[in-house]
This record gives sequence, structure tokens and C-alpha cells, in this order.
Amino acid sequence: MRTSQYLIPTIKETPSDAVVISHQLMLRAGMIRKIAAGLYTWLPLGLKTLQKVENIVRQEMNKSGALEVLMPAAQPAELWQESGRWEQYGPELLRFKDRHNRDFCVGPTHEEVITDLARNELSSYKQLPMNLYQIQTKFRDEIRPRFGLMRGREFLMKDAYSFHVSQDCLQQTYDKMHETYCNIFNRLGLDFRPVEADSGSIGGSSSHEFHVLAQSGEDDIVFSTDSPYAANIEKAEAVAPTTERQAPTQEKTDVSTPDQKTIEEVTAFLNINADQVVKTLIVEGAVAEDHEGSAPLVALVVRGDHELNEIKAEHIEAVAEPLTFASDEQIKQALGCSAGSIGPAGLDLPIYVDRSAAVMSDFVSGANKDGFHLTGVNWERDANITEVVDIRNVVEGDASPDGQGTLTIKRGIEVGHIFQLGTKYSEALGANVLDQNGKAQTMIMGCYGIGVSRVVAATIEQNHDDRGMIWPDAIAPFQVGIVPMGKSDEVKELTESVYQQLTNMGYDVLLDDRDKKTSPGVKFADMDLIGIPHRIVISDRGLKNGTIEYKNRREEDAKDIAKDDIIQFLTDTIQR
Amino acid sequence: MRTSQYLIPTIKETPSDAVVISHQLMLRAGMIRKIAAGLYTWLPLGLKTLQKVENIVRQEMNKSGALEVLMPAAQPAELWQESGRWEQYGPELLRFKDRHNRDFCVGPTHEEVITDLARNELSSYKQLPMNLYQIQTKFRDEIRPRFGLMRGREFLMKDAYSFHVSQDCLQQTYDKMHETYCNIFNRLGLDFRPVEADSGSIGGSSSHEFHVLAQSGEDDIVFSTDSPYAANIEKAEAVAPTTERQAPTQEKTDVSTPDQKTIEEVTAFLNINADQVVKTLIVEGAVAEDHEGSAPLVALVVRGDHELNEIKAEHIEAVAEPLTFASDEQIKQALGCSAGSIGPAGLDLPIYVDRSAAVMSDFVSGANKDGFHLTGVNWERDANITEVVDIRNVVEGDASPDGQGTLTIKRGIEVGHIFQLGTKYSEALGANVLDQNGKAQTMIMGCYGIGVSRVVAATIEQNHDDRGMIWPDAIAPFQVGIVPMGKSDEVKELTESVYQQLTNMGYDVLLDDRDKKTSPGVKFADMDLIGIPHRIVISDRGLKNGTIEYKNRREEDAKDIAKDDIIQFLTDTIQR
Repeated sequence: MRTSQYLIPTIKETPSDAVVISHQLMLRAGMIRKIAAGLYTWLPLGLKTLQKVENIVRQEMNKSGALEVLMPAAQPAELWQESGRWEQYGPELLRFKDRHNRDFCVGPTHEEVITDLARNELSSYKQLPMNLYQIQTKFRDEIRPRFGLMRGREFLMKDAYSFHVSQDCLQQTYDKMHETYCNIFNRLGLDFRPVEADSGSIGGSSSHEFHVLAQSGEDDIVFSTDSPYAANIEKAEAVAPTTERQAPTQEKTDVSTPDQKTIEEVTAFLNINADQVVKTLIVEGAVAEDHEGSAPLVALVVRGDHELNEIKAEHIEAVAEPLTFASDEQIKQALGCSAGSIGPAGLDLPIYVDRSAAVMSDFVSGANKDGFHLTGVNWERDANITEVVDIRNVVEGDASPDGQGTLTIKRGIEVGHIFQLGTKYSEALGANVLDQNGKAQTMIMGCYGIGVSRVVAATIEQNHDDRGMIWPDAIAPFQVGIVPMGKSDEVKELTESVYQQLTNMGYDVLLDDRDKKTSPGVKFADMDLIGIPHRIVISDRGLKNGTIEYKNRREEDAKDIAKDDIIQFLTDTIQR
Repeated sequence: MRTSQYLIPTIKETPSDAVVISHQLMLRAGMIRKIAAGLYTWLPLGLKTLQKVENIVRQEMNKSGALEVLMPAAQPAELWQESGRWEQYGPELLRFKDRHNRDFCVGPTHEEVITDLARNELSSYKQLPMNLYQIQTKFRDEIRPRFGLMRGREFLMKDAYSFHVSQDCLQQTYDKMHETYCNIFNRLGLDFRPVEADSGSIGGSSSHEFHVLAQSGEDDIVFSTDSPYAANIEKAEAVAPTTERQAPTQEKTDVSTPDQKTIEEVTAFLNINADQVVKTLIVEGAVAEDHEGSAPLVALVVRGDHELNEIKAEHIEAVAEPLTFASDEQIKQALGCSAGSIGPAGLDLPIYVDRSAAVMSDFVSGANKDGFHLTGVNWERDANITEVVDIRNVVEGDASPDGQGTLTIKRGIEVGHIFQLGTKYSEALGANVLDQNGKAQTMIMGCYGIGVSRVVAATIEQNHDDRGMIWPDAIAPFQVGIVPMGKSDEVKELTESVYQQLTNMGYDVLLDDRDKKTSPGVKFADMDLIGIPHRIVISDRGLKNGTIEYKNRREEDAKDIAKDDIIQFLTDTIQR
């Protein structure tokens, strides 16, 4: 492609409404343009990369034996009513009425439609396993679209759904998808990790997320120093301390702590460490369907230097899902003090205590009256434990749950998720097949997603410097950039020849043929901003010595390559 | 692909709600499934063909120099308000409010978004011409979705938009698109015709439609026997008769024609031909914006054996747009008789007379009183002519407007449309660039559409027989079908070898590996239904003679090919 015949409207200034680097650089490089909150047009340069990601995903999915389909974006409400999600799904679900006043939604996901298809088209175990996928634009009406493509409202997604008669069979396809996802992200050239993820109410280690490692990631992901163990912090088990609880040595004592509410304030005031204090959090309890009146309350206790893991807490049967913190009024009314003054001693609520908090002795806590804390508090003697549970986030240095090594934590951007769905949708929609014995059996399902447009943004978050993006060869919009310098016939002819040869070999080449009014400095800056991984300069000065200058976007220094070797050099260097 | 690992849920019975053959066959062959009115899931087989069409369109568009972009499906109302279409567009436009109560629509077309992009990104004539296109799922809320993919609510569309500073430049891109469309439909293997189309209020011969010829087409398209002239019947000019009007020989006479209202009734009753009668139609006239009261009426006169061309009539300045026939009440009130009794003699309305009607003499017409007709009517003497105009559909045998040959008429399915938009959108949205003299100039636009999913249906309408579809090689989901018959190792090994060789060469091959329970007859019927263009049977019987049976889907008889020649034979036969 010649710059003069292309559209790359680069911008020098960083757009003020772009917070994250991928958003900033995609705007600056002319890859996308915003048309409304969370809605973007992909310009030619951006679309080229998006399509390369899409193609790699498609090729690897096909290789895995999955079959591509394309479901409608608009979905009739009836299917969502069958699954129960028409009511459950929040306002992210774009609902609309058609001209005949029938209810529809624009699908953010397609479990209902695919399960409907499966119940109509699959009738025998012999047809299984079957794994159907699509690559499609989805719509999710985010309350606060942000970070460009990281959390937009329209996005390109690969979603796959598999159907099985047995858990074993599901596990095989699940493992195949795990392997396929690794192949995909490897081919994309990304530094990524598959990590165990929370699987909600279904339980089991039946869910993995795929994270692109990047400082700017929204998720904490946890690794063992000595084993392959890796998990989202939401899921990572905080193993029980090996130390046992010490016998009490202090009496429980009221101390006046006027206006000291947070852990920081209390520890500073009492001159103690945060690991000598407990935090007591009050949340709503689970209620039976026929329960009337206000929700019951439940206390959750973690060590002062630890953070509550809300997902883990939510899994406690007695706790309401989703996790709902009691309001100041609820606490005041039920316990007679403010939230910052709660402690387990004398608290007449079910008390769930984190494993690390449960081995503390002689600790400090709120006194259940404002302005006071208790020191010398001890479990059993002063405070009840309803159950010892794992409800905290792991921290750097914790023991790995598999017993090998300790944990480290990195930031990640979730770009893929594989999940054993079980029979949630197939049961609701009555998707059965006849098994070996001719008996109807509800199909077991798995689902497998990749955020295709998100991958583009995540790649930039991981691969950039202060000059711009740095594309992996496999998904660079152009793998090679050519900047001719000088007006001699030799420069012109060689430029044309190298450009044609590489193009004919199937490489994407950008030839910056802008005239002299655009300085070489601007041309180099644009190529760096766009992140073209391999750049060559064909100049009179170089040709005097018979060389062409080559520069790798990831390296500081350029090098001279004999002009006759340049094609061979590039084809050896570029990863396909 | 092996049938056992694929999903082709064929159906024997023709689904009752499918009227047209493409809809019937796509359902029967397991290419699509309906999930709601006008909404379909593309199953693997259907999607394969859709993607092949899409790829050919993309390749040829890229070859033409157009640049691919991808705009959001959801579009903010503000842009449509700027163009005025937010109010003008009917209920086909799916409007919705997002969670913040802001107005959006799901785009059935993207003139506004692309013009917005152009006004933001294009600033100089040096950047022009620019032709941007996308291939995208559109939504149009049809009041009565029907004919499967021919008139669905979600459909895949290629839409392109070009920008120019001069009409000459637009014409060049327009011609390039004309050529590109011909290349596309030729590569698709379709019998098609580009025809002149009506270009609405913009005028000029600035619009062409591309029609796939098929008996079942909704449009009449018109060709010259002796020249390349071709036009949609909406547009085709009915040239003035070469004969002159004869002088009157009869007196105007009232004849009683009780209960004879239609042309057929009157001509039978009076024992005359339809070309001796005129039809007089009353429509609403154009009214000024500040006009009050009932609409003025206008009379349109065509020969009894001719049909009014509503598009042509609409272009008469004095006629309301869209064309609106006066109701029986309006006619009764204004003229004192029923619609079937109107005639031009003594009629106090503007009278627009078709060229063919204007050369009639001594003709029959309504008498403007119920129960009577007039014979011996003559223009000027008995009836006024406000203007002689071309307002009829051409008929077979009419002279070609280019003066060469006569016209024939065929049925066509519109699959593409190229159109010179002019400045309709660029003016409304203020999309200017600086011209050579540094002066702001409104860009001139063209737009170019192809109904990608419609092409799939149109291909079937053109290519089928009573056994099923017949795919052109270029877009067949599978080009080759292999049916092995017999259990010998030789059959097995040769089947596997031929399958692998063809697959490795990049052909799409369907190997029907279903077990003996599926009879050869069923396998052949399925391959015929799916429309696989080339089928081979590898059997013990054939191998005894060292041959493999080959059958072309378009031919009646199979032939034997020496087994060692089969690969060469197929690669010679299949068109790529």
C-alpha cells in the first residue's frame, strides 16, 4: 500500500478523553475514530489488524474441529424468557421493540440462541460432541463505556458453545479449547497466561481466563514461583496458615479511640501493626424467597492487612448473592454503632472468619460502640466463630495452593474465557438428545469466548513505547515500512522493485510515497507511531555503499544490509 | 470435511412457510435456520458460501483501490437529524434509546456516519478521490419479512461511499465501480446484467442496478435486441411513436355501457381492441407547503393496453411524490362519477397524456358519468392535453431508446446498485474540503451497494433444478463431493488419498463418510440437494476397471475416469 492512496490520519496531540495508552495510540495512529460513547469506526489501518486477529482465531478454531456459524444479532425475547435472563440481565442488555411491538434484544452473548438451535437440530448422542462458534459484533450497553476498545459498547467477539452427553466428553473439548487458545495467543505473539478463574455457582475448577500481561491490566493474576499454578486473584485460594492460634495472654480491654475509624487510623493511634487488628464487615445474608422484612445481616472478619475477596465471600451459602454491603443505616439500626466500630466480640450475628484472622490472638477490634476499640480480644473466649473460611485476597509471598513455592502477582487484561456451563441453559430450554440407551438426556455445555477487538487493544497495552505501538509481526497492519530518500532513479527503481517483490510474496508493505513536503523525520515518526515492526530506508547515501538501512521497531539501532540481500534478510527476519 | 464431523441437517419435506425456491432449498439443505421473522442463523454450510461471496467482493473492492473500514451498527440520532432522515425514514429504521435515554438507531445504511467521518478526516482535495467501504450486518425492520434471505431483517451488505471535488472525478470512480461490480458478478459465476435505474430526484443517468437474471425475480428488466442498452423497466424510456396522429373521422358519441368498468369489460362490450381505448387515472397533485384544504387532482392518460409507470409519473413536477392515487371518495366529490368512468373529454383537470395515447384518434374513453363511455373522442377537438409525457412501462417489441433494435423483457433480482449521490449528505452535514484554490467546496459523493447475503439467495434462484441447488464453482460450499462405496481396503485407501490430495491443494471437499445405514441413494440425493458441482464415486465395481465415476451436477450422465487421472481431471475441470 502506498501512503498517498491510503488513509492514516495521524494526530500529534494525545486526545484528552483517552486515558489508557491503547486508546490514545489507536486514536493518534488513525486506527479508530469515536462516533459516540463506546462506539468506534475502525479505519483501514485498525481494521487490517482486527481482521488479522480474526483470521488467526478462525484458523485455529477450525483446526480444533469447531464449526463456524453466524447467529443473528437481534434475538427474540421469548428465548431469554425461557432461560430466565430476560428479567435477570441488567440494563447492559439492549432491549428493543420491533415495529410490531414484539420484544427483542441485541445479543451481548448467544447461549439462548445456540441452545435453541441445538435442541432443534441435535437429537442423538452420535452427533456429539459438537462445538459451534461465531465471530460477530456484539452490543453491551455499558453504563460507563471507557478505555476505548477495552470497554466499548460494540465489540467483535468469538463465542463458541459445545454440546456433550458426558462430563468426560465436555472435559475433552474443554482441554482442546484450552490448547487452541494457547495456540491462538502464541500465534498472535502475546505474552499471556491461562489462569484458573472463579466459575460462579457451578463450582469446580471448570473455568479458565486467558490474560495478556500488562501493567495497565484491570485484573490481578497470581502465579506460583515454583509451579505452573496460576489463577485470577478472585479465585486464588489463600491456604490456611501453618501456625496455630496462640493461647490468650491479655484481657479484653476497652480503649477510647475518638474519631479513629479506619485500620490506618487505629493502628497509628494504638501504635500497632495492621496484622494485629481485625476488620469486620457487615453484609446482607441470603434470604429465603418467602422472607419478609429487612434482610438478615452477616459479619465477615479478615485480618487488618488483608482485603476481603468479594467473590469468595459471595460463595458462602448464608451470604446474599450478589454481595451487598449493609448500609450505614442498616448497621446503626441493627447494631447501634457505625460501620467503623464493629468488632466480633459480643456481636450477635453469624460470624465468618478468614483463615488468617482465625489464628490471631490478643487482637484489636471494634468495640461495637462508637469511639472505642477493644484490645486483647481472643476467639472463643470473647468472640464466636460461626465458620472459618477463605474470604481474603492472597498477597505476594503467600504459599501457593498446590504446595509448591510462593505466590507472585501481576496485572493482566482478560482476553479469553473458557467455561464449563453444565446444564444451565440446556435444562432451561429442554435441549435433550437420546443417549446410547435411547433415553432422553439433557446436553452438557461448555462455552468459550475471545474478545477479538479487545485483543487488539491489549496487544498495544503490552507492546508500546514512548514513540508508539510495536506490533507483533503476525498482526501488524503492515509488516514492512519503506521510506525512500532521494530522487535518483536508482532510489526510485529499487524502492519500486523491493515494494513489488515483497507485496507479491504476500507481505503487507507500506510505502511512504509522500512528497518532499513531508520530512523524513515525520515519516519515521509516523511509522514508529503505527508500530510497523520492520522499517527500511532506501537512500542515495546508502546506495553509494550498496546498502539499505534496516531498523527493527524493538531495537534502538539501525543496521545496513547489502541491497541485494534485503529481500532475503527481510523474509528471514519477519515471523509468519 | 467429513460428513460425520459436520452439521448438515437436511430436510426432505419442503417447509410450508417458504415460498421461493432459494428459501426452500436453503432450509432443506441445512444452510440456514429461522429464529424469528426475517432473522436467520447461518449454519456451517450456508456460512461457507456466504464467506466465499464476501471474500470475492472484498478482493475486487480492494483491487479497485477502495479502502475497507468498519463503522458501528449503532448510530447516534444526532447524525440522522443533521441529514433530516431521522424524521423522513419510516419504521424500517430501528430506533432505540440507550440506558441513558439517548436516541440511536441500528443502521440500515451508513451515509450519515461516513459523511461525518469524511468531514472530520478529509480536508484537502489532495486526499481525494477516496472510496471507503465496509462489509457489515445491517438491520432493516421490514413490515413483512419474506422470501428468506431475499427480504430478511438482518442481512450482510457491502456498502461503499466515495468522495470527490468534481463530477468528472465522481464519474471516474463510478465507472471503476461499474467495472468492479462486473468483475465481482463474473467471478461469482452469475448470469447478470447492469441496467440503468431510476435515480430519483437527483436525475441524470447516474444510477445502475445489477440484476441476477431469474424467472422468480421481482423486477422487470429491459434489453435491446441489437445494442447493449439495458434498463430497469422503471427507468426504460418508451420512445414516441413514429406515426402521427390521424385527423378525426368520427363524432364524439355517448354510448351506454352499464356496469362495464374495466378496460377488459369495455373492450369486450364494444367489440374493440384495448389500443383503441384510453385509461384515465386520477392522482394527487403536488402542493405548495402552505397549501390548505384538499390536494389538487391531476389526470394521467395511457393507452388501454399500456401500464402506467409510477416512477415516471412521479417525476412530473405537478404530481405529488410519492405517487398517490385519488380515493373513490375524492374522485366522486370532485368529478361526480366513479373512478372507472373517467375520461379526458371535458375533464377540468391538468391532463398529462402518454406519448402513445397522444397519437390516438377516434378513441374510446370514460364519459365522466357513470354507466356511459364516449366513442369517437379526439384530442384538441374534444379533450385538452396539458402535456405529452412518457409515463408508461415499455412493452416487448417497443423500439429501443438508443434507436437500435427493439426491446425484450426479462425478470431480474437486484443484487447491486451504484449511485451518484451528489451533495445530498455532504451539504447537509457540511462536509467540505479546500480545493486547488484554497476555497471550501462541498464534496460530491457516490455510493455503491451489494447485498452479500442476497447474492447467495439470488444464485440459488438462478441455479437449481428439481433435485436441489447447483452452485457455481467459485462459491460452492464444497466444490467436490466424494462418495465411497464398498468396504475394500482399496476403496478406503483411495478415498482417503484423493480426499487428502484435493484438500491439500486448497479445494473444499466433502467426504460422505456416513456408515452403511445411510444408503448411497440418500448420499447422492444430499449431494444433489446441497448442490456440490463435482461428485465422484469411488467403488469396488469401478476400481475393478481401474476407474472412478465422475458426475457434474449440471449434467445428466456420469462418466468413468481412470483412477490415476482423477486428480488431474478434477483440477482441470473445477474453475477457480
